[in-house]
Amino acid sequence: MELVFVTILLALLEYSVMAGMVGRARGKYGIKAPATTGNPDFERVNRVHINTLENLIIFVPGVWIFGLYVSELWAAVLGVVFVIARIIYAIGYTQAAEKRGAGAGITGIVNLILIVGGLVGLGRALL
Amino acid sequence: MELVFVTILLALLEYSVMAGMVGRARGKYGIKAPATTGNPDFERVNRVHINTLENLIIFVPGVWIFGLYVSELWAAVLGVVFVIARIIYAIGYTQAAEKRGAGAGITGIVNLILIVGGLVGLGRALL
Amino acid sequence: MELVFVTILLALLEYSVMAGMVGRARGKYGIKAPATTGNPDFERVNRVHINTLENLIIFVPGVWIFGLYVSELWAAVLGVVFVIARIIYAIGYTQAAEKRGAGAGITGIVNLILIVGGLVGLGRALL
Repeated sequence: MELVFVTILLALLEYSVMAGMVGRARGKYGIKAPATTGNPDFERVNRVHINTLENLIIFVPGVWIFGLYVSELWAAVLGVVFVIARIIYAIGYTQAAEKRGAGAGITGIVNLILIVGGLVGLGRALL
Repeated sequence: MELVFVTILLALLEYSVMAGMVGRARGKYGIKAPATTGNPDFERVNRVHINTLENLIIFVPGVWIFGLYVSELWAAVLGVVFVIARIIYAIGYTQAAEKRGAGAGITGIVNLILIVGGLVGLGRALL
Repeated sequence: MELVFVTILLALLEYSVMAGMVGRARGKYGIKAPATTGNPDFERVNRVHINTLENLIIFVPGVWIFGLYVSELWAAVLGVVFVIARIIYAIGYTQAAEKRGAGAGITGIVNLILIVGGLVGLGRALL
């Protein structure tokens, strides 16, 4: 499972960088904690971070279970696609809300494959 | 642990459906990204999704550890109860904020059993 | 891995207490669901809970993988530091936004050690 765990940690490292970007955007756009709204440019950077959290809660257990019951190699490949999809999402969404679609779409497909594939793998293991 | 993993993936699938409902509610109530506020009907649908995330961070590792150190079967049973509790929560909260109590309460009890039960199981394994 | 799992469950128990404090703050400051804004005192209590969620998504898989591939004992030590850091963060941030730095800093260092240490441990296992 080493390759799968590497992609999980890379996704978490990427997510940490996004948290740092929210902190920098606080200074740049003058949004003081605890506020998380008040400027659309800040809010898009903040949403990149939070939306990645919303997807990591699926990705982390999903890729782990997929690696155990379907394919370790394919889990790692999907993990790499997830990490790249979040870069595409972050770059697009930081520019404009309309440009978040591609990254969001690839992320959603990866997570759906992990869930449905994992359920199929578990079903085969149980039968 | 197959049965436990099935309930984790079912909870993640349910959570994905909630994310889709937030997207649909964006269109229905005219709340454009990156905003997540501005209409209470939209905000309740959004809170269903986010509150489920807030509970999944406990449920996923909690049911996993409970399955390993207490009982795999009871972990799976609690997993099914969690999934049903989130349906009750989603239906109630989408209607009115006052109707979120039952689903929230069952979710909280399941998560507390998973944490406390897991700690007891780990304590016995360590002694 | 028992000691590592104990620290994960303690962190989740701590996080549950924070959720309860958000509920109490709703009553105290008159912020009715689904709203999560409107009073800075409430918002700081709410941000304590949400920021802990934002960090748990790194901590839980991070400490788990660190325990498997680097050191079970050091993973548990870092887990205890994480739990203490979140107490410092909660007490400080509840008082004033400026007092959240120490707890946030220690949390960030722990999570970075878990990610980078885990990647080094996995790299050694793969080579």
